[in-house]
Amino acid sequence: MAFSQRLAAAAGLVETKLAALLDAESAGGAPPRLVEAMRHGTLSGGKRLRPMLVLEGAALFGLKPEAALDAAAAVELVHCYSLIHDDLPAMDNDDVRRGRPTVHKAFGEWTAILAGDALLTLAFDTLAGASAAADPTVTAALVLGLARASGARGMAGGQCLDLEAEKLGQPARPTAAHIERLQAMKTGALLVFSCEAGAILANAPAEARQALATYGQRLGVAFQVADDLLDLEGDASTVGKAVGKDTAKATLHAADGVEAAKAHLAALEADAVAALAPFGAAADTLREAAGFVIRREK
Amino acid sequence: MAFSQRLAAAAGLVETKLAALLDAESAGGAPPRLVEAMRHGTLSGGKRLRPMLVLEGAALFGLKPEAALDAAAAVELVHCYSLIHDDLPAMDNDDVRRGRPTVHKAFGEWTAILAGDALLTLAFDTLAGASAAADPTVTAALVLGLARASGARGMAGGQCLDLEAEKLGQPARPTAAHIERLQAMKTGALLVFSCEAGAILANAPAEARQALATYGQRLGVAFQVADDLLDLEGDASTVGKAVGKDTAKATLHAADGVEAAKAHLAALEADAVAALAPFGAAADTLREAAGFVIRREK
Repeated sequence: MAFSQRLAAAAGLVETKLAALLDAESAGGAPPRLVEAMRHGTLSGGKRLRPMLVLEGAALFGLKPEAALDAAAAVELVHCYSLIHDDLPAMDNDDVRRGRPTVHKAFGEWTAILAGDALLTLAFDTLAGASAAADPTVTAALVLGLARASGARGMAGGQCLDLEAEKLGQPARPTAAHIERLQAMKTGALLVFSCEAGAILANAPAEARQALATYGQRLGVAFQVADDLLDLEGDASTVGKAVGKDTAKATLHAADGVEAAKAHLAALEADAVAALAPFGAAADTLREAAGFVIRREK
Repeated sequence: MAFSQRLAAAAGLVETKLAALLDAESAGGAPPRLVEAMRHGTLSGGKRLRPMLVLEGAALFGLKPEAALDAAAAVELVHCYSLIHDDLPAMDNDDVRRGRPTVHKAFGEWTAILAGDALLTLAFDTLAGASAAADPTVTAALVLGLARASGARGMAGGQCLDLEAEKLGQPARPTAAHIERLQAMKTGALLVFSCEAGAILANAPAEARQALATYGQRLGVAFQVADDLLDLEGDASTVGKAVGKDTAKATLHAADGVEAAKAHLAALEADAVAALAPFGAAADTLREAAGFVIRREK
């Protein structure tokens, strides 16, 4: 099966799961307005890259998609919450995402803040709710891993550093090390967790988890470099969101130019692929995922 | 020891724990600005009622405070995150809390949104991080219980219903049942979980957990009725926040008048105390907590 088909199949599985989770929120008494806003922010497309990484990572250890679907959905819920909050007027102030109004444009600001809060909470609900069938030690490890990747030491912290640079001009002259740290927190941490989750689910040996973490780390950097390249080269119609906005932010690779960024991407792809060596041909889809992240057009 | 001293002792324990958790976020690489905002929203006073309920509930089953402190801190982190987000301009637009600037007044809106997000995430991190010493089945049950109480079916859902009433005038004529459900979700769910957490921690029998849930449910309703009374009777100097604002919101008891509210409170206190009968004198502090909630002056 071609990579794009595998990605679409994973996306289909996770979207069915996300829809079921949101239906259960409704059935459990969540207000219709809130659930609609959560649906808008969750079921309006997206590549579903992170849940696919969870499913593919789990498959390396013989786990079927059903066994990893709760974790895959939880990661995507965190990703979707972060997009809703990042788009808010007080943050990036984006009106459009994936060609549709952002949640605060469609539902208003307070509903968008609450929808993000509720999706973040639902991610942990989903991990813990799966525990009747799962090993509770695994559940606790997944909760800790997802929280660490998402919170002040991870994604939320990275967004803070990004907005400090953009809105406050702090630090005045960001070093390459600062920007790399910012990106590792903002984008990298959740990608790394997505890659590691399968190993956690399977109680895999530490070396296997570390190999996936290394792959995820290189993938995360590549994701960001590719993003910067798209921002330099892209046009609004292809990317589907406002282009050029990131130039005000701390971007590392824009400064070095297009060719340097492309060389960096090639090295990152080689590193990511090399990290998967212990898994043999079973990791081919993850190898292709690295190429997909690097050569995507939006 | 008098109730006020026991409450102060519990507050001292949980504040030390919260400070340590925030220090650990800093040490783990969280940005100083974000951690400062999290501290402002977490370590600026407050009654610490919810963590005291966790500690007292756990004590009923012979658990020492140290065994329940992670859960107590997690509940308070969720409470503090909710105050930060509720105070935002897009929600209740409050400038002052506990006599100090709210987090968005002190740090700006985007930092306040991120601080709330990071505190919510830290609550689950704290529950799961305790699992090395704890029974992972208990960890998973605590994560699920806290998520369910806090998310779209609980606190976030209740805040949505409250803002729909206040900002959108929906429903046009809220029924008593609607307002009771709103309050049970917005305030009650987290109080019920706080009361139940000790039973979860101790793997107590279902009847014991149910007795604490009943106590917590009555306490939650009483909390809200007392709040409405304070709003009717209070003045800004005593309450330490803007008074009279809630009259625009859906308040059940304001409409019935002061005397009806007082009679309702007496019945709720009797119910709450009765629910604790199985625990004998060990539950005396929880009995006093009901009186404290009902007769508090802010």
